Amino acid sequence: MSEIQANGSAAENRMQEIVSLCKNRGFVFQSSEIYGGLRSSYDYGPLGIELKRNIMLEWWRNMVYSRENIVGLDASIIMHPKVWEASGHVASFSDPLVDCKICKERFRADKAPRATAGTDTTITLADKERAKFAQEQIEKDYQLKLERDGKIIRGAKVAACGYICPNCGSPFLSNERQFNLMFRSFLGSVDPLTEIAQAIEAGTLANLKGLELRTKLEELLKPPTVYLRPETAQAMFVQFLNVQRSMSLKVPFGIAQMGKSFRNEITVKSFIFRSCEFEQMEMEFFCKPGTDDQWMDYWKEQRMAWWREFARHPENFRFRQHEPKELAHYAKACFDVEYQFPWGWDELEGIANRTDYDLKKHATHSGKKIEYLDAETNEHYVPYVIEPAAGATRAVLAYLNDALDEDEIPDAEGHPQKRTVLRLHPKLAPLKVAILPLVRKDQLPEKAREIAKAFFQAGINARYDETHAIGKRYRRHDEIGTPYCLTIDGQTLTDNTITIRDRDTTKQERIPVAEAVTIVKERLKL
Amino acid sequence: MSEIQANGSAAENRMQEIVSLCKNRGFVFQSSEIYGGLRSSYDYGPLGIELKRNIMLEWWRNMVYSRENIVGLDASIIMHPKVWEASGHVASFSDPLVDCKICKERFRADKAPRATAGTDTTITLADKERAKFAQEQIEKDYQLKLERDGKIIRGAKVAACGYICPNCGSPFLSNERQFNLMFRSFLGSVDPLTEIAQAIEAGTLANLKGLELRTKLEELLKPPTVYLRPETAQAMFVQFLNVQRSMSLKVPFGIAQMGKSFRNEITVKSFIFRSCEFEQMEMEFFCKPGTDDQWMDYWKEQRMAWWREFARHPENFRFRQHEPKELAHYAKACFDVEYQFPWGWDELEGIANRTDYDLKKHATHSGKKIEYLDAETNEHYVPYVIEPAAGATRAVLAYLNDALDEDEIPDAEGHPQKRTVLRLHPKLAPLKVAILPLVRKDQLPEKAREIAKAFFQAGINARYDETHAIGKRYRRHDEIGTPYCLTIDGQTLTDNTITIRDRDTTKQERIPVAEAVTIVKERLKL
Repeated sequence: MSEIQANGSAAENRMQEIVSLCKNRGFVFQSSEIYGGLRSSYDYGPLGIELKRNIMLEWWRNMVYSRENIVGLDASIIMHPKVWEASGHVASFSDPLVDCKICKERFRADKAPRATAGTDTTITLADKERAKFAQEQIEKDYQLKLERDGKIIRGAKVAACGYICPNCGSPFLSNERQFNLMFRSFLGSVDPLTEIAQAIEAGTLANLKGLELRTKLEELLKPPTVYLRPETAQAMFVQFLNVQRSMSLKVPFGIAQMGKSFRNEITVKSFIFRSCEFEQMEMEFFCKPGTDDQWMDYWKEQRMAWWREFARHPENFRFRQHEPKELAHYAKACFDVEYQFPWGWDELEGIANRTDYDLKKHATHSGKKIEYLDAETNEHYVPYVIEPAAGATRAVLAYLNDALDEDEIPDAEGHPQKRTVLRLHPKLAPLKVAILPLVRKDQLPEKAREIAKAFFQAGINARYDETHAIGKRYRRHDEIGTPYCLTIDGQTLTDNTITIRDRDTTKQERIPVAEAVTIVKERLKL
Repeated sequence: MSEIQANGSAAENRMQEIVSLCKNRGFVFQSSEIYGGLRSSYDYGPLGIELKRNIMLEWWRNMVYSRENIVGLDASIIMHPKVWEASGHVASFSDPLVDCKICKERFRADKAPRATAGTDTTITLADKERAKFAQEQIEKDYQLKLERDGKIIRGAKVAACGYICPNCGSPFLSNERQFNLMFRSFLGSVDPLTEIAQAIEAGTLANLKGLELRTKLEELLKPPTVYLRPETAQAMFVQFLNVQRSMSLKVPFGIAQMGKSFRNEITVKSFIFRSCEFEQMEMEFFCKPGTDDQWMDYWKEQRMAWWREFARHPENFRFRQHEPKELAHYAKACFDVEYQFPWGWDELEGIANRTDYDLKKHATHSGKKIEYLDAETNEHYVPYVIEPAAGATRAVLAYLNDALDEDEIPDAEGHPQKRTVLRLHPKLAPLKVAILPLVRKDQLPEKAREIAKAFFQAGINARYDETHAIGKRYRRHDEIGTPYCLTIDGQTLTDNTITIRDRDTTKQERIPVAEAVTIVKERLKL
């Protein structure tokens, strides 16, 4: 906590830089911005969509295309509600929530700053007027005597729960309450409100109160209720048999899925890091019980290598092992891949040993036998599962932060000038090459378009760009991470050469037009 | 209607073939099948996901990568609810629904079989008991005298509405009612039922009835209500300014988006053709008013060429112009791209001239000025929009039907045997090459894996496959549309050659291992 506070403004400045770049350069916009935006909801612009897709396709290439024993799945977002009963999400996909009675912050108890019960704590409010009002309120409600110094209140003690408000530090908190994080919706042509309206008209709800009333309302809504998936993982368990049989797969094998999930998060934070609608990349690896520990080691090594492959600063990725008390009750072990975000280390991926918990749960709830038959040994068993589950939207933020840099380069007169440059790995860069006619006349656009076409036919994402002066275009492509700019000028028409400019070094050299595609391919290692 | 009835069983058989192939070969599974499935919900298996992605990436390559003036967008599925008020979806995204009073079928009035008011109609029920019961009921309720012959009732006349029940032919129907097709959900940490429960406990709903009660319930639920988008299109209008400015785009330009949309469809039908969760590929092309007609012609030609490029039977794709009475009130013109599905011609894509309707609506509702400034002429205007909006999930079904074929090939003894072969265009085929060691010993698997790796490094989706006898593997790859099988046998180890087998002709020839990647690339025109 103290580290974050000390670095608070540096972290905020860094995030502000990223958010501005994203909006101004077409990576990420606030969703529905003209309507004032929607809570923690984001749209990926022309460049953001390519960055996100490149990350996800690299994951798919690594996890599916390059492996014999892993196949893909793309399940529907709305699954049968019984899936979420079996998985425990309907009953327990819930955060213990607490309200601060002083500043009214609502927060997750399990994420709140810890503090030893009985020790002194300091409450810090926005200004001294609010602090004065809060002091009076606490002294009255809790029969305490406190000290105040401007906006700071001293003398309160940490309560038995062992945590304090993450906003103001207050120990005066509500009890913990459960809240279901899944988005509820309704399937079918009968409007669910009709049922409730009819029950009210019939008077059947008139004498109910509290829990009894809530239970009755839930019953009325249950038949059409469906949920937006809070994770992609369950589909791989539910379709385990269909996938295994249709593809004649032998254990060990994996099923991979990428796609959107939805959680009604209580605390959204840090731009696209935690939002209610997000994208995941998950793989369930089914192995024989007893081999699970070695597969856990294998996947830890594989996944960390993947994350670091695209990073300028691989040291900013690390493992954090879950402590026993953090582990989900069904998990045998779990390791997070963490990245050092501007606000500190935070989770990118969880790699968990989920044992045979999920397959067995779905077998019980569906009444279907979900087992694997080893044709060679004639053995029946329920496989164990190692699950590397990564956040694709978080990956976008991590690699943007990893790549965003500032340096100084000489301007036309040789004076050093600050430059923003996005040093993205070429495989992640939204555009691989910019094709720039020096001016919009003298047949230069026609020549440039010809070259752009050659790149397109070679499957390399190049973009023709004729807007603004050439220096401005170079800076723009530095900012969006385009590794190479190719410039078509007067000389091109006489000797069929163009200049190639390197994003990172800004060095330029002349190369023959005929070799442009080959040279770019080689340098990008595509 | 009569044509469909005549072809009914052929169409049903054909659909059954496609559905079986999809399930058995890992293209498409029923969602949550172990829980009995969910109404019209489907999961894409290991091969289906590749086919769908190939179609969508080809669309993106054609629409975005190969064009200077079109860029991409990937907006959130849950947008601000005001977006759907502005677009008219909250008020009017609704189907006129009717119930048949005889067989209880609920259907869309605008899709029901037409019949001239006052003419005779025939009611056909499931069996004669039901027909007898229905006859008595109608004679009593409507004071009519009817004739019955087994399960058929004669003597009823078509009502003034001009249509009959699509299930039993009855003209005894309820009035048309509206139903909102959007999926409703709730955003935020306050459970929406709490509000309703509190209102019931407080007694504030006790004396309300009918419309008044419904209006009050809607009011209570409105603050947290959000919708799953019923189309991807609106995001391009809402983000028009952000995209145009961040990318310095000049009219004419387009914004393209692919992704999931959700509609609570009343009638789901024909496997993945119409389901509640589906995928779209939409592009909004912004042009200067007055140039819209010529751009409409341009996009019609472009889009039809795209559909036909991947088809074995291009003649099964055609245009159908919307009649004036079919046109949405804001549309100046609309053409559907239709495909001849087993049940008849049906819609794949709509290409509409939406005029400046959407941008103006969002400007009004958001209070923001949404205009384009032409920097060269200094002219301000609201662009017109041509929208080619295609169904990606429908495209999967169309191309599967286009490709699924049966022929006869000689077996080992030269006797002709029936073969199922999926003649997919190589660019759409889930796997491009299968790499098959003849047997699982004698170093053949090792050699085969080496070759598979060479294809992977060349970016070609190849799959190593050692399960079952070689003949069975050939048939399996014919069925899933893999254009080439490469077989590694004993001879490979002595002279470094392999056989390449062509899916369509089943012809085999020996080629050098060293040239395998090049030869496959050339033949596939990749």
